Amino acid sequence: MRFDRDAPASKLQGLVPAVIQDDESGEVLMVGFMNEEAFALTRRTGFVTFFSRTRNALWTKGETSGNRLQVTRLLADCDDDTVLVRVKRLGDGNVCHTGARTCFFKEIEANG
Amino acid sequence: MRFDRDAPASKLQGLVPAVIQDDESGEVLMVGFMNEEAFALTRRTGFVTFFSRTRNALWTKGETSGNRLQVTRLLADCDDDTVLVRVKRLGDGNVCHTGARTCFFKEIEANG
Repeated sequence: MRFDRDAPASKLQGLVPAVIQDDESGEVLMVGFMNEEAFALTRRTGFVTFFSRTRNALWTKGETSGNRLQVTRLLADCDDDTVLVRVKRLGDGNVCHTGARTCFFKEIEANG
Repeated sequence: MRFDRDAPASKLQGLVPAVIQDDESGEVLMVGFMNEEAFALTRRTGFVTFFSRTRNALWTKGETSGNRLQVTRLLADCDDDTVLVRVKRLGDGNVCHTGARTCFFKEIEANG
């Protein structure tokens, strides 16, 4: 993976988007960002850890709720600047902080 | 959707990540970025248009290759700052510029 800290401001300096997908159902559950340390921790521990841009800190998904995300497979994209994390949902399986199963629950009308 | 141009540099100023997922197979095909205009065009035309941060311009996926991505469903996440686009693959169906079906074809060893 490439974590380009010297990228222009229009790029994500030192961060890569991480798409979280349920390995069983194929549902896309959420998107977060990882820096090099979050990515290394995710690999080493087997649980998804993001870098929170708001809190400027690492956060392991589910560390308080118990709804951790166990890594099943990790895939880099062709440019090594995005990661796809296939996971098993632990705890009650609800990934979104709203209590929903996935963060993507708001349908947008296609012709707007 | 929120396109926050005044976000701090650590955030994506005026851009949102767009996860492209095959509506039939559930495969995650690629991730791009959309600004407000790219998002509006995607909705209006029914074909995925991104904003290229490298070229600083809109680009409709497949405009030269013919491998356009037809929008089937659009979903916003809980924070309205990421979009999931479920698509039908047109042309030869190979989404990646390398000729692969998906951009996510590089397996990363989980314990690294």
